[in-house]
Amino acid sequence: MNNWQEKLNHIRSHKLFDAFIIIVIIASALLVGVKTYSVPDWVVQLVDVLDLLITVIFVVEISVRFLGEGRKRDFFKSGWNWFDSIIVMVSLIPIEDSDMVLVARLIRVFRVLRMISIIPELRILLNSLIQALPRLGYVAALIFIIFYIYAAVGTLLFETINPELWGNIAVAMLTLFRVMTFEDWTDVMYETMEVYPFSWAFYLSFIFLTTFAFLNMVIGIVVNVLEEEQAKADTDNPERSSLRNLHDEIQEVRALVERIESRIAESSGAIKDDNKNRKVNESD
Amino acid sequence: MNNWQEKLNHIRSHKLFDAFIIIVIIASALLVGVKTYSVPDWVVQLVDVLDLLITVIFVVEISVRFLGEGRKRDFFKSGWNWFDSIIVMVSLIPIEDSDMVLVARLIRVFRVLRMISIIPELRILLNSLIQALPRLGYVAALIFIIFYIYAAVGTLLFETINPELWGNIAVAMLTLFRVMTFEDWTDVMYETMEVYPFSWAFYLSFIFLTTFAFLNMVIGIVVNVLEEEQAKADTDNPERSSLRNLHDEIQEVRALVERIESRIAESSGAIKDDNKNRKVNESD
Amino acid sequence: MNNWQEKLNHIRSHKLFDAFIIIVIIASALLVGVKTYSVPDWVVQLVDVLDLLITVIFVVEISVRFLGEGRKRDFFKSGWNWFDSIIVMVSLIPIEDSDMVLVARLIRVFRVLRMISIIPELRILLNSLIQALPRLGYVAALIFIIFYIYAAVGTLLFETINPELWGNIAVAMLTLFRVMTFEDWTDVMYETMEVYPFSWAFYLSFIFLTTFAFLNMVIGIVVNVLEEEQAKADTDNPERSSLRNLHDEIQEVRALVERIESRIAESSGAIKDDNKNRKVNESD
Amino acid sequence: MNNWQEKLNHIRSHKLFDAFIIIVIIASALLVGVKTYSVPDWVVQLVDVLDLLITVIFVVEISVRFLGEGRKRDFFKSGWNWFDSIIVMVSLIPIEDSDMVLVARLIRVFRVLRMISIIPELRILLNSLIQALPRLGYVAALIFIIFYIYAAVGTLLFETINPELWGNIAVAMLTLFRVMTFEDWTDVMYETMEVYPFSWAFYLSFIFLTTFAFLNMVIGIVVNVLEEEQAKADTDNPERSSLRNLHDEIQEVRALVERIESRIAESSGAIKDDNKNRKVNESD
Repeated sequence: MNNWQEKLNHIRSHKLFDAFIIIVIIASALLVGVKTYSVPDWVVQLVDVLDLLITVIFVVEISVRFLGEGRKRDFFKSGWNWFDSIIVMVSLIPIEDSDMVLVARLIRVFRVLRMISIIPELRILLNSLIQALPRLGYVAALIFIIFYIYAAVGTLLFETINPELWGNIAVAMLTLFRVMTFEDWTDVMYETMEVYPFSWAFYLSFIFLTTFAFLNMVIGIVVNVLEEEQAKADTDNPERSSLRNLHDEIQEVRALVERIESRIAESSGAIKDDNKNRKVNESD
Repeated sequence: MNNWQEKLNHIRSHKLFDAFIIIVIIASALLVGVKTYSVPDWVVQLVDVLDLLITVIFVVEISVRFLGEGRKRDFFKSGWNWFDSIIVMVSLIPIEDSDMVLVARLIRVFRVLRMISIIPELRILLNSLIQALPRLGYVAALIFIIFYIYAAVGTLLFETINPELWGNIAVAMLTLFRVMTFEDWTDVMYETMEVYPFSWAFYLSFIFLTTFAFLNMVIGIVVNVLEEEQAKADTDNPERSSLRNLHDEIQEVRALVERIESRIAESSGAIKDDNKNRKVNESD
Repeated sequence: MNNWQEKLNHIRSHKLFDAFIIIVIIASALLVGVKTYSVPDWVVQLVDVLDLLITVIFVVEISVRFLGEGRKRDFFKSGWNWFDSIIVMVSLIPIEDSDMVLVARLIRVFRVLRMISIIPELRILLNSLIQALPRLGYVAALIFIIFYIYAAVGTLLFETINPELWGNIAVAMLTLFRVMTFEDWTDVMYETMEVYPFSWAFYLSFIFLTTFAFLNMVIGIVVNVLEEEQAKADTDNPERSSLRNLHDEIQEVRALVERIESRIAESSGAIKDDNKNRKVNESD
Repeated sequence: MNNWQEKLNHIRSHKLFDAFIIIVIIASALLVGVKTYSVPDWVVQLVDVLDLLITVIFVVEISVRFLGEGRKRDFFKSGWNWFDSIIVMVSLIPIEDSDMVLVARLIRVFRVLRMISIIPELRILLNSLIQALPRLGYVAALIFIIFYIYAAVGTLLFETINPELWGNIAVAMLTLFRVMTFEDWTDVMYETMEVYPFSWAFYLSFIFLTTFAFLNMVIGIVVNVLEEEQAKADTDNPERSSLRNLHDEIQEVRALVERIESRIAESSGAIKDDNKNRKVNESD
């Protein structure tokens, strides 16, 4: 059994194994693409066969990864392993019901996401993107409050003018998001300006507030990233480069110089004593 | 009386008190949202009852905050306390007039803003946004002058072509803001190009000027923020890290070394004197 | 005469003089705005009178500035003085011809620009904007070449599809600018895709190239500005703060320490000589 | 022969030679522009003659550059020389076929690109743009995966609603790019919301994901460029300015001070010995 496990571990650590799986994932992505075209029947059947083959390969791959793991617990410690396993296992569920065909095809689409879990660089990139999210927390909350209040006011004032845009608070927030992206926002504005001529103030203040908050969010991220890079650069070269180390080095030199001074004071005292003694002797 | 005050102060400093008020504000925000949907009568009545309840809770809350304050003056020193008190008190005014229902509902919407005053992080964020405004001062003035001149020129030239877009200077500025957001700006341009074929120069120069000024404003803010962060980092670690401190430290070492030099000069003079004396003695 | 000049110089240096002129310029700007509205006749006549008054005030102001200048040459050294003088003098030319009324009104609009020349902060801001222009030089040239080539290709391919958008190279460049601002660019694209199904590549490559070049321009400016600010900060605190000064200070300390070393070497040599001599003496 | 080569080398290194070629390229660009206008026949003929002249000049120029090169191999080492030669040689191929006229005219357009190869600053700029591309690599891959998955899902769900926008995965990706540029994206959304009322989540999540990834890409580039500039500044002033050098300098001072200390220890020992000896002597 141990022998088997070592072999599997050897396989799953092999570069060719990863390369092969990446090719299979790309093939799976291409199949997803091909299916969106209206193709002759024989291609559809070929795609279905290849699809089944890919499912089998994925099941084997996940099995190899799982069985090759020395301690089974470690396998489930990685969120990416969970992700891969679920994606693969869900696509194993047989769906005969014609209504569920759409769901089955959607699951096959999500297999493309395995590309992110298998390429380390993309995994790191996504992790760093996710880590950047909390930074946005409070600014996002502030922007949401701005949206909510403007949407509530918009619904109160403009509901009768155009219920499709301002019918309830959810629709109004969607309309405001549209205004924020500058997408035909003047059409929305001109419509309400016919009833409330000063409603341009509503739109302009909203645009200024959200743009300003968004700008601050972006600047905040830039500053954060720059500081982190700085901190990382400091820890990368711990012995050199940082101001703190220069401080420590100068303090060391200072300690040395102070030691010298006390010695000189001592020895110069000795010389003076010596001279004094001698003078006393010689004056004898 | 003093006993009462201490109890109230204890209550208002309690974490659960703030948590409860935040939940009430969220409930108040949800009620604002629910009202924008067409709901059955019993829901409307329930919402009205809850609304009254929330008003009562807010009045009690503000009273507790006010009475719990040791020195009543301090309560009015905080702008946020003024803000909360006014929001709550205004919603107490009974509005029977059907025309004023809209105003009453708008006031209820603004109670959502209490979310900002009660969550410290949002309060800090808003303060920092407001502090960033003066930086924009002169660039904003410059952009306004650009808008004003282009609007005046636009009104002079294009008023007869489309009075709805260029009828007077206010409308023209709104049209120019629309052009700045690239919202169907070519429709505006193609219309005037039929009369003045070279009017594209008007729009392109305007877009370049405002984009350039806006870009400079953004860059200015980024640079400012980075410098402030730098300054803050310097003051956070006053003993270490900053170049100024390194300068001071080097100067201290220098003073030490100079003191040593003068001592050595002295003592070496003493030795030389000594030697000279001795030589004189010995040559005797 | 000298007495007069001193008085005028005194006037023109006075804060109230500048404040008064700023108010007059704002009034002049407001008049420009008022004229764009359809106002009753008596307002038009009032505006005309005020306009004349403002012209007179400006003439007097420029005269005071010119006559108050000790050396007349210095007056013409400042570009802003030229600018003010021309703006004011041109508005003195009597225009009776009804066709020229538009030009006369345009000149009055440009008097608003005097706001920039009179407020030092705006003058500095504009100078810094103009100084930033050369930085953009080569990237602007590159973007222009991209525009020119795409416009030439676009005219060759799409001229027969829509001559209004692709009729000649100038119109094609305007259309491409429209595409770059994402203003109904898909309408332009879908139209040509009916004839050339792969023409999306033309638009997408153009958008990627210009966006990328523009992004690089912005990043270039940010980096430049940050470096300049850094350099300015270094020169502002010449004695402290900069790394170069730390280098110099460390070198000074080093020179001191080296001087001490040579003295010690000398004096320790002396002591050794002394000891040697003595030993010789004592062994006598 | 050697004599000839030296002369040609002299010519091609001359400033006037480059200036003349730049003028010819600009003339070539202008001819390209002129041809897009409907001009009288004699202008067309003039343009054709000038076109031929420019072709001849370019052939001569490339020949001079090639023959003037000492070692013919070096000529082909530069990618820009290849680029110039191919552009010029391809325009030499006689195209009589009327179908190929379009291709012939396109080749003439690309001669404008020689502007980049001949002006060193533009060449450097383009090189730096191309060098910046790999940085975008993984983020571009991530954005492509996001596009692909959303396009596949979009095709599955919305194909029957509007086959022109969601007919197959390629068309769907183009539609998503349109949504990303905010170009009439609400029209696309409102259409699908009539069938799937919650499809706004599809568009909003897509916009957030791509905007966020794009923002991270831009910030990544800014940080990279700033770090590179920093590194370049460090290597430009190797003796001064950098923290690493300050470290080295402080270490040198430290070594000096330590050498002094050991000398003083030695000499002070000598003095002590001396004193001890003397005391022994004198106590004799």
